[in-house]
Amino acid sequence: MDARTRALEVYVDLMSQPCRALLLFLRHNHIPHTVKNVLLHRGEQKTPEFTKLNPMQKVPVIVDNGFVLTESDAILKYLATTYKVPHHWYPQDPKIRARINEYMSWHQTNTRPHAARVFILEVLMPRMTGNPPDAKKVERALADLSETLDKLESVFLKQQPFLCGDEITLADLLAICELMQPLGSGRDVLKDRPKLDAWRERIKSAMKDTFDEVHVYLYRLRDKARL
Amino acid sequence: MDARTRALEVYVDLMSQPCRALLLFLRHNHIPHTVKNVLLHRGEQKTPEFTKLNPMQKVPVIVDNGFVLTESDAILKYLATTYKVPHHWYPQDPKIRARINEYMSWHQTNTRPHAARVFILEVLMPRMTGNPPDAKKVERALADLSETLDKLESVFLKQQPFLCGDEITLADLLAICELMQPLGSGRDVLKDRPKLDAWRERIKSAMKDTFDEVHVYLYRLRDKARL
Repeated sequence: MDARTRALEVYVDLMSQPCRALLLFLRHNHIPHTVKNVLLHRGEQKTPEFTKLNPMQKVPVIVDNGFVLTESDAILKYLATTYKVPHHWYPQDPKIRARINEYMSWHQTNTRPHAARVFILEVLMPRMTGNPPDAKKVERALADLSETLDKLESVFLKQQPFLCGDEITLADLLAICELMQPLGSGRDVLKDRPKLDAWRERIKSAMKDTFDEVHVYLYRLRDKARL
Repeated sequence: MDARTRALEVYVDLMSQPCRALLLFLRHNHIPHTVKNVLLHRGEQKTPEFTKLNPMQKVPVIVDNGFVLTESDAILKYLATTYKVPHHWYPQDPKIRARINEYMSWHQTNTRPHAARVFILEVLMPRMTGNPPDAKKVERALADLSETLDKLESVFLKQQPFLCGDEITLADLLAICELMQPLGSGRDVLKDRPKLDAWRERIKSAMKDTFDEVHVYLYRLRDKARL
């Protein structure tokens, strides 16, 4: 398929971690696309129109010349294999691809829920209830996240600069976008972790301005939290 | 790679849902492999030897000529693309592959935790504590599972015989092995769901005797529960 004749629509909210990973990938690789904003805090994912598109009422969703696809994991792999992008994102080599699939699967029951939980407890719940964060719950969530961060350091980044090898892949994008999320309350969960912090810098340096661009709303939340 | 010169070891426990999906795939496709049992109820996933193999202390794990891979999702995709097996399991067509990736991703936060929770509450917890299942918790778990079953019917199986199209794929194997698990307490969660029950029959019929073979320990648990 020719990218110039493909009509790619992406339904996203920049406050959603996997949506940011998707936008990072699209912008960095200069893939033409139309952004359709679905504002989660306004419940726009629950409108009848959006529910028709994705009965699961989640973002991101893409519509590629009429082909509707959900789940960030599947979307990123589909885009990386159907657009002409550098091979390092999702190489054809079955062993490297297996490593990326392995991380992306582990991610769903580790990095994603554990980092998201901290954000939910420190940012979303206080907004919804008007009460301060539940300190005990936050402590437990941080302990779970800490175990995940230990594993990222001791297993995935043990002897390589990126999660799945010497080059940046889809796995790094998904992971870093989750781990940035707790910043919404002013909490940088990687700052006392030199190995992870250096890995974040490598991703930032690879993604250039695009990295900060997709995090603009999160940075605003962080700045408000610091006041 | 020639399957005859590949030394494939698989670390599994037949009481683990994704392990059964893996064994179904291997046996049905006549892929030579050596089974290494890791008995979860004896805590064998926590031994120093196994932890060295998989620091996450989970099954399944495969070792393919020295290449160690974890996460059932990644393992199944790796095997389907590196062994000569029928294309329908994980077709090269990017759109069909995207559908399979989409289901397998959704599975991890829906079918898997919701079906497993019922088994944990009705089988594992009573064994560990000596107390009967917590009726309220079971009720809540069944409500969550019911929502997942609704989605399987109304989205994935809406107008096709298998989860991702006209033919059986890796997605069906992972899904059915999870949905069989509550049978351990004698509970068949698909029996009052004609659409899902018919789908299970299609899988059974495609997998022939292999299906019952990998479920032998689960059937024994079910039979004990019925006494």
